[in-house]
Amino acid sequence: MDALLSIPLTLLDQLQKPTLAFLIGGMLLAACGSKLTVPDPVYKFVVMLLLLKVGLGAGISVREANLTELAVPALLAAVVGIAIVLLGKATLARRKGVSEADGMATAGLFGAVSASTLAAGMAILDDEGIAYEGFIGALYPFMDVAALVTAIVVAKVGMARNAAARLQAGGTVALGGGGQAPVERGLIGGILKDTAQSPAISALLVGLAIGLFAEPDSVYGSFYEPLFRGLLSILMLVMGIEAWSRLSELRKVAGAYVSYALLAPLVHGLMGLGAGLVAHHLTGFSQGGMILLAVMAASSSDISGPPTMRGALPEANPSAYIGASTGLGTPVAILAIPLWVALAELAVG
Amino acid sequence: MDALLSIPLTLLDQLQKPTLAFLIGGMLLAACGSKLTVPDPVYKFVVMLLLLKVGLGAGISVREANLTELAVPALLAAVVGIAIVLLGKATLARRKGVSEADGMATAGLFGAVSASTLAAGMAILDDEGIAYEGFIGALYPFMDVAALVTAIVVAKVGMARNAAARLQAGGTVALGGGGQAPVERGLIGGILKDTAQSPAISALLVGLAIGLFAEPDSVYGSFYEPLFRGLLSILMLVMGIEAWSRLSELRKVAGAYVSYALLAPLVHGLMGLGAGLVAHHLTGFSQGGMILLAVMAASSSDISGPPTMRGALPEANPSAYIGASTGLGTPVAILAIPLWVALAELAVG
Amino acid sequence: MDALLSIPLTLLDQLQKPTLAFLIGGMLLAACGSKLTVPDPVYKFVVMLLLLKVGLGAGISVREANLTELAVPALLAAVVGIAIVLLGKATLARRKGVSEADGMATAGLFGAVSASTLAAGMAILDDEGIAYEGFIGALYPFMDVAALVTAIVVAKVGMARNAAARLQAGGTVALGGGGQAPVERGLIGGILKDTAQSPAISALLVGLAIGLFAEPDSVYGSFYEPLFRGLLSILMLVMGIEAWSRLSELRKVAGAYVSYALLAPLVHGLMGLGAGLVAHHLTGFSQGGMILLAVMAASSSDISGPPTMRGALPEANPSAYIGASTGLGTPVAILAIPLWVALAELAVG
Repeated sequence: MDALLSIPLTLLDQLQKPTLAFLIGGMLLAACGSKLTVPDPVYKFVVMLLLLKVGLGAGISVREANLTELAVPALLAAVVGIAIVLLGKATLARRKGVSEADGMATAGLFGAVSASTLAAGMAILDDEGIAYEGFIGALYPFMDVAALVTAIVVAKVGMARNAAARLQAGGTVALGGGGQAPVERGLIGGILKDTAQSPAISALLVGLAIGLFAEPDSVYGSFYEPLFRGLLSILMLVMGIEAWSRLSELRKVAGAYVSYALLAPLVHGLMGLGAGLVAHHLTGFSQGGMILLAVMAASSSDISGPPTMRGALPEANPSAYIGASTGLGTPVAILAIPLWVALAELAVG
Repeated sequence: MDALLSIPLTLLDQLQKPTLAFLIGGMLLAACGSKLTVPDPVYKFVVMLLLLKVGLGAGISVREANLTELAVPALLAAVVGIAIVLLGKATLARRKGVSEADGMATAGLFGAVSASTLAAGMAILDDEGIAYEGFIGALYPFMDVAALVTAIVVAKVGMARNAAARLQAGGTVALGGGGQAPVERGLIGGILKDTAQSPAISALLVGLAIGLFAEPDSVYGSFYEPLFRGLLSILMLVMGIEAWSRLSELRKVAGAYVSYALLAPLVHGLMGLGAGLVAHHLTGFSQGGMILLAVMAASSSDISGPPTMRGALPEANPSAYIGASTGLGTPVAILAIPLWVALAELAVG
Repeated sequence: MDALLSIPLTLLDQLQKPTLAFLIGGMLLAACGSKLTVPDPVYKFVVMLLLLKVGLGAGISVREANLTELAVPALLAAVVGIAIVLLGKATLARRKGVSEADGMATAGLFGAVSASTLAAGMAILDDEGIAYEGFIGALYPFMDVAALVTAIVVAKVGMARNAAARLQAGGTVALGGGGQAPVERGLIGGILKDTAQSPAISALLVGLAIGLFAEPDSVYGSFYEPLFRGLLSILMLVMGIEAWSRLSELRKVAGAYVSYALLAPLVHGLMGLGAGLVAHHLTGFSQGGMILLAVMAASSSDISGPPTMRGALPEANPSAYIGASTGLGTPVAILAIPLWVALAELAVG
């Protein structure tokens, strides 16, 4: 098929998928003045189930992997996830008019991984007969959780600093600069603790722990996994309703999100490919594995990310982070897969 | 089997089906003074999921049909649905002691369609080797949604008029009759808008839109469809508890509901058969299609109807509308299927 | 495998199963100060679904059994369930520091039946070629419901008497002893009525009635049964959070629970075997049936019991009853199965 034609078709295909379709459905409801709401206790429970599932799935896939083989690529995957978020802080979040919470939530989703984009990458490698390690699926949680937690902590530290700065500016006595470093350290420690204890992240972590150390595979397969996409459709409907009411906030900064969403997947994919090359030289990580690490890094989370951000960073505007990631970032990441195949062939083939 | 014996057996069979069994279970709970309740936020969510499912299913079946072939029979199906409701307004809702809300909710359910009665009709045609169009399943939402929305709007207009009349009668200055028509038009417009924005109908409509324009088939098949019957059983339990406490309201008017429930399916089936005959002459609609249009018209909704009425017309008494439709109307509609087969053979065979 | 080695392995296996893993997960959450909570309306709904499922399943299995064959063993199973609870009252609940509610909740769980332990027993009999009656699965609800209801009523009567005693001791005028017996009878009647009307037990009873008299098999198979283990995992998480905060209450009486949990399954299994022997002489109940009645009596409920106790006896401490039953009683009951095989062979082989 003509490459130029495939871009709008990929976009249309993405728009028709349940995730975006329910988000747009929610926006339509809000636009038409519908009185439909998901009661708050139910909504909290839906988010909890989604994050338990993400944690359980990650824990099970890590438990089933060979930990010694996994160690180096997993560490590199986590480093790439963190680096993507920090890059987002230095670029997107610096843009005028982009709020700390919105910028970091978006960077967090671009650092996290889309399981369906990864599956598309695996299908392409299978078709072309390029081999990759069996434990690749277990790398995904390392990049995913590292990026999401980094983004949340960075956003909260930034918001706390801004609040402190406003307080100081308004106060009559300025504190000396000498006490800043320990205060900062205490601040980050407190935010890490708060983040780990927040309902969203602690659901993710308890799921991870149960998946790693127990054998919840039967209940995962009979309950959490089958309900997941349906509960996500509910979450998307709720987020669409909210996104509509906050869409106007974005009018002045839409350009910043569009340029980030179109460029970031390509830069992130190169970072992933570079990390894969390091692993290749250190441990003989395969060419297929390098490609899939690039695919993971280029992808943005449409599954684990939105409920996590909604739970842990309620200040962030879903129009910004889901619009940028699922609406633009994911199609770019899917279209870029052949690029990583070609570059990996050049690098080590 | 002896036809006389088959009537009580069909009734008993209907009583043992989950829909009625849970309704009776709820009535028993209320009768025994049980303190079991479904918390309100959960209940609202259950209704929302049920109506999203009904909308999604209808949208998917229409999307998959050939729209040019579908147009004429679909329009006729909608007309039959509306006509059944208006006939109910002129008959049942006029009976002394039958409230506007109860009468119209009952007529709405008799206008809406029972998927299981339709499936029984298809099975009989398959057994007898009578062919019908593949798009028949996509006709069902047109009759169903048209009847339910008409019933809700008519009931709300009637209740608003009654309230206005009581207000006028009690006031000291009577308004001139000249201003009535524009007031009425504004009233109906307002009620249509309110109905479309109500949680129940907007869940139905957003599901319909997503089913029509996106591709939610995977989440529909993995979540909404499998959960449907279970969530319906919960709804029935709740409605049974409520029905028990309102049963006494019906003592004086039970005769009106019984005679309506026994006669209406036969009259409605003839209307459906007539519409099918029109479609037969206009577009060559098949004999089997005529029979199934009669079956749809004769049937009363036991699936889409109760949650819609409960959400959009909370004033109506479920003892009246579910008792009449599922308790009496459905068995009559099932027993009448062979009648439509014979009449269609007479008309066009 | 070495028998000594199999004990810690069975314990570890039990700890990794979803039921205990989620309980421990909830305890970890509470220990780490997590703010994760399951909203109360959702929690009540989860308990209601669990108990409806238990009731429906029991009703369906009894409906499908041959009632005349079933009568004698079913009566004996109920008697064993009640006897186990009364034995628990005379032993565990008398121990110093063990509260009425905690002791009776634990005895109730040890009287109730573990479906998975029963399944393990059936698998062993199948392997050894020992025949048993097909209706055995339908005996389980009789022992289960009898034990749970007895435990709840005994606990409530005890608590009411203690409250009355405290009131009397504090009051200025003592009532004469002559009026006590009718007061007691009224008290037990009131508690039986309250128990039957409580949300937990009435969900169980309405499920039982629908399972017995209607045909909810389709909705049971498509909804209640598949969701059960997942909803139970949520319940366990909630109970774990609660158990952690109440663990300290148990420090002084842990010895009482440990000795009960290790000995009771053996004593209860002998009671079950004895009842089976009576049925063998009365109605020719098979040797395999005797063994399975012993397995049922020895087992403690990890499925139907916890939600019932949580709903009907909220005063009881889940650390006590789940820790004792699922943590210790179940492994002992599983390890004891070969003992019942050998004893039954001695008695009637």
